[in-house]
Order: sequence, then structure tokens, then C-alpha cells
Amino acid sequence: MVEEFRKYIAENNLFNLSDRVLLTVSGGIDSMVMAHLFLAINASTGIAHCNFNLRGPESNEDEAFVKYFASLHKIPFFSESFDTIGFASEKGISIQMAARELRYRWFEEIRLKNNFHCISVAHNLNDNVETFLLNLTRGSGIAGLTGMKPKHKNLIRPLLFASRSSIVEYCNFNKIDFREDRSNAETKYKRNKIRHVIIPQFKEINPSFETTIIETAERLNEINEIISGHISGLRDKVSIVNDNSISFKINTLQGLSPRLTLLFELFRPYGIAKGQLDDLVNLINGKTGSQLITSSHRFIKNRKELVVSKMKQIQKITLRYL
Amino acid sequence: MVEEFRKYIAENNLFNLSDRVLLTVSGGIDSMVMAHLFLAINASTGIAHCNFNLRGPESNEDEAFVKYFASLHKIPFFSESFDTIGFASEKGISIQMAARELRYRWFEEIRLKNNFHCISVAHNLNDNVETFLLNLTRGSGIAGLTGMKPKHKNLIRPLLFASRSSIVEYCNFNKIDFREDRSNAETKYKRNKIRHVIIPQFKEINPSFETTIIETAERLNEINEIISGHISGLRDKVSIVNDNSISFKINTLQGLSPRLTLLFELFRPYGIAKGQLDDLVNLINGKTGSQLITSSHRFIKNRKELVVSKMKQIQKITLRYL
Repeated sequence: MVEEFRKYIAENNLFNLSDRVLLTVSGGIDSMVMAHLFLAINASTGIAHCNFNLRGPESNEDEAFVKYFASLHKIPFFSESFDTIGFASEKGISIQMAARELRYRWFEEIRLKNNFHCISVAHNLNDNVETFLLNLTRGSGIAGLTGMKPKHKNLIRPLLFASRSSIVEYCNFNKIDFREDRSNAETKYKRNKIRHVIIPQFKEINPSFETTIIETAERLNEINEIISGHISGLRDKVSIVNDNSISFKINTLQGLSPRLTLLFELFRPYGIAKGQLDDLVNLINGKTGSQLITSSHRFIKNRKELVVSKMKQIQKITLRYL
Repeated sequence: MVEEFRKYIAENNLFNLSDRVLLTVSGGIDSMVMAHLFLAINASTGIAHCNFNLRGPESNEDEAFVKYFASLHKIPFFSESFDTIGFASEKGISIQMAARELRYRWFEEIRLKNNFHCISVAHNLNDNVETFLLNLTRGSGIAGLTGMKPKHKNLIRPLLFASRSSIVEYCNFNKIDFREDRSNAETKYKRNKIRHVIIPQFKEINPSFETTIIETAERLNEINEIISGHISGLRDKVSIVNDNSISFKINTLQGLSPRLTLLFELFRPYGIAKGQLDDLVNLINGKTGSQLITSSHRFIKNRKELVVSKMKQIQKITLRYL
């Protein structure tokens, strides 16, 4: 496992051994194994632990456990408490989304203040498969089917190659202590259903189901890269950049095929949502002077051109009151 | 249902009302509803029924049932018996694959001999979702995730818009008679597991799961079209067509990104299989004079070029003995 860990880090250029890596450790099995592996390769680390205050006294025990581990190995320890429920309620988002936003924002703060090169999270291969299926179920388009990345900006996932069972094996073999995750079953209802009910069924059809999904995600990721390159090239070809706007020739837009996907990808940077595609098509084919407003831009049909301009803040505020 | 049927046929240009359509009717609920709908729109049809001899006396009863229906409505009837098990055994393929090959080959014979414009099969929306998931499980790459098409060469699927439940509803309302499909559970084990166990679980997470999958398949289909267009354009740019071969500049190939997917798509018409990608990369980077054989072509590295030529039949036969 240690060798595969080294190899995965090297192959994906996750970090150099001279870099300081901030480990995000909940105390659960994945993050404790991750911490153990970083010790095994003698990397220079810090440990960040979030207390979301969602598990009562157990939340505090988790924090004490991780803090003790850090002190044992003389690793700098950072912890923060979050009023997750309050934040979720204020922002009108789910507890899960709130916890995620809070923690990643704080990790980046710690990273910058303490000169860490990157932040390491303990996502494993099975997490990746579950996320793929969750996104497939919700309907994410190709973007949600490209899989988790080993590296994304300052975030690394050095355990992404490892199956949950190999992590359990390593944990047992090395007698690594960890905290059981008894988080509110509801917040993980969907993921747990996929993990405990749906995936085992798929594995009866194909025992290598998980590896198959990962390979499919990797192919879709490459396809996504090809598409992005193609769309950028197309955008350069069909648009003219003016001082305060970008114009597109109407008849070029009318000739695009496949129409909906190309229109969506072309105009996505200008705030077009999937639900607005039909409106966009109507605008392109409609009368001169017609307009369409997205979350960030204004589209106007001006005779043979579609003119896109960024909406000024005051315009956005005005619209909010309409 | 009849109106949606008409609309789907029109929107997808499946056929004109003056065309003669060969209906493939097993006697099961989907094909009987399909036949009923064709009667409702007064189309000119014929009915083809395959007897695969897999269900003993029931197979013959199915045939008699469909024959009677055809005669009732004065529709030309064609039937054929197949030694499915023998054919499967001879070709070394599964019963399912054998049945499929036998029937499509025969449908096309009947179509041509009797001047039918196209062949209609009764696949419905749920079949489409199940096929998507089956392909996802097996690992088909993007090709298996683009969904069934309403039209493919001379084959049409005019029921693809309809859910199984709407078909059952139409059947019950119109008191349409049909034969229960009690085919060997084993040949449909995987599909049945997806239908009866896995999909219901997904629907607990997202009740619109099936529609979501269909939309994803349609987006992936459009993406596939974009990729194909992109790859063709790329192939024209990076290759030179000679009399008996096509050459590619080695340094252009070395510069491709994302490498594996682009190489696979570029060289797929020349017989490259996914398992040969690493060999291809090694060839591109290897010594001049190195070769690679695919199922249909020979690749030779000739200094700064990769030269691809079609293998002659005699060469293929020789190789078979090596």
C-alpha cells in the first residue's frame, strides 16, 4: 500500500516530498490511514480537523482523538468549530453543503496562513464510484460523470487509487486506531443506498463493476477535455469581441449541430442555464430587439447578430426587485 | 398515446404514411401495442414473427396467435423458425446473441423481398434505460451510453418515447390481447436484475430517474457527434493519404492530448482495439522499422512517420497460422 501510495503521488504529480501538506483528518478510517501513510513516507504535514458540532459529545471526542494523534507524532494541529446548522439555515442550503463550504473555506485559510503547499483529502476509489452514480442519478450531464480528480487546484486526493477493502486491510494489519463514523444516516441516505444496496447488485452482474465505472469516468473526462478544446476553438471562430460585448453571427448559430449541446457549451460562460436553452433558440430565431437575461449577462438579438454583454451590478439588483 | 405516436414518428422522420412498414411482432405486450398503434394510424404494414423454438409448444402458440391477429386485420404475415441453439453453438455465441443475429438478418431479407421501407421494433423508454445501465455495467465507453436511436438505417423504434406503464395502460384501456413472455429467465437475468431490483432503488433516490437517464444519454449522444466531427477534422489535418497507405507525422501524434482517447478514436477505423493502445504508444515512440498488426491493418514506424496500410487477405491468413 505504501508503495502504491508513493507511485500514485509521483504519477499524478501531487506534491514533492519537500512540500508541506495539510492533511484533513476527521478521525474516520480513511483519514487515519491517509495520515499513517504520510508518516510512512516521512512527508512534512499538518493536520486540520473540523468539528461540525453535529454529533454532540462524540464530535468533541473525535477532535480530542485526532488532536492526540497529532501530538503523538509531533504534527502541527489545527481545529475549528462550526455552527453548521446555523450556516445552513442562513444560506438556505443543506447541512451537507454547509459543512462542505465551511470546511473547504477554512482549510484554504489554514493552508495560506501556515504555508502549506496543498490540502489532502482522503477520498478513495469507492467514494469516486459512489459520486459517479449519485451524479448519474441526479442528472449532472457529462460534468458529473468525469470522476474525482487526483489533483484539483490546491486539493489532492492521494488515496483515490485505493479500494475501501484495501484501506480496511491496511488499517487492520497496522492496527491503526480510528473513530467510527456514526453521522446522521439521513444526510448520507442516498450515498448509503448506492453503497450498500445498488453497487452490490451491480457487482453480481459484473464483479469488476467499480473498476469499470472508474475507467468509464476517465474516458468521459478525456472526452470532456476534447469537447472543451473544441468549444473554445469554435467560440473563437464564431464570435467577435467588442469593447463591452461579444457578438455572434445569427446564421452561424442557426447552423450549429448538434444544436442544443453546442449552444449550451458555447454560452455557458455567459450564464446560460440548461432550462434556458429553448428561450435561447427562440431568441436566435426571433425578432430583432428581443432579449434574454441570464444570471450574469444580457443577450440581445440585433438584426443578424446576437450581442452578449455582462450585466452591471445595478442592473442585477434592479432585476431582483422585478 | 396515438397522438404522441404520430408526433414521435413525425418529429423523428421515421417514415411517411405512404411507406410500407414491416412490424416485428413477438406477440408480447409491446409489439401488440405497436401493431395496434399502426392500425390506429392506418399505416400500410406487414407482420414478421420469429419462432426461435426456445419455448417448446408455447413458441408455436405464440406464432399462431400473431398469425391470427394478422389475418384478422388482413395484414401480410411472415414467419420463420430458427434453430437458435444450434446456431449459437456453431458460432460460439450466447443464445441471446444468436437469436438477435438470426432475426435481424431475416427481417432484412423479408424487407427487401417484399418492398418494405423499414423495419419497426417495439423497444420502449424503459428498455432504453435498461440498455444504458447494462452497458454502463459492462464498460462500453461512450458508445454504449448514447441510448437507443429512434431510427438507425432501416430500423425504426416508434415506441421509444413510451414508458412501460403507459403501454400497459393503453393495452388495458383498449383490451389488447397479448402473450405473456415467459422466456428463459437466465437469458434475461442481468436485464431483469436491472429492471426489477436496481432501477426501483434508483427511483427511491430520484423518482424521475428514467427520464434523467434518457436525457443524459441524449447529451452523451450529442457529445459523441461533436467528438466524431472533431476527430474527422483532426484526421484530415494530421494524415496524408497515399496510394496504398496513410501516413501520420510522429511528432504530431506525440503531441496529442488527451493522448489515449484521441489515439483510440483516430486509429479506430484501422482496427485498433482498446487493448492495443499501449502497444501503439510504444510504436509511436519506438524504433524505426517497428510494426503493429491490428485486425485489418499494418502499422509501421518509418522514421518520422507512422504508415498505416490495409492488410491483404493472404497476409491475414498467414498470420492466423503464426
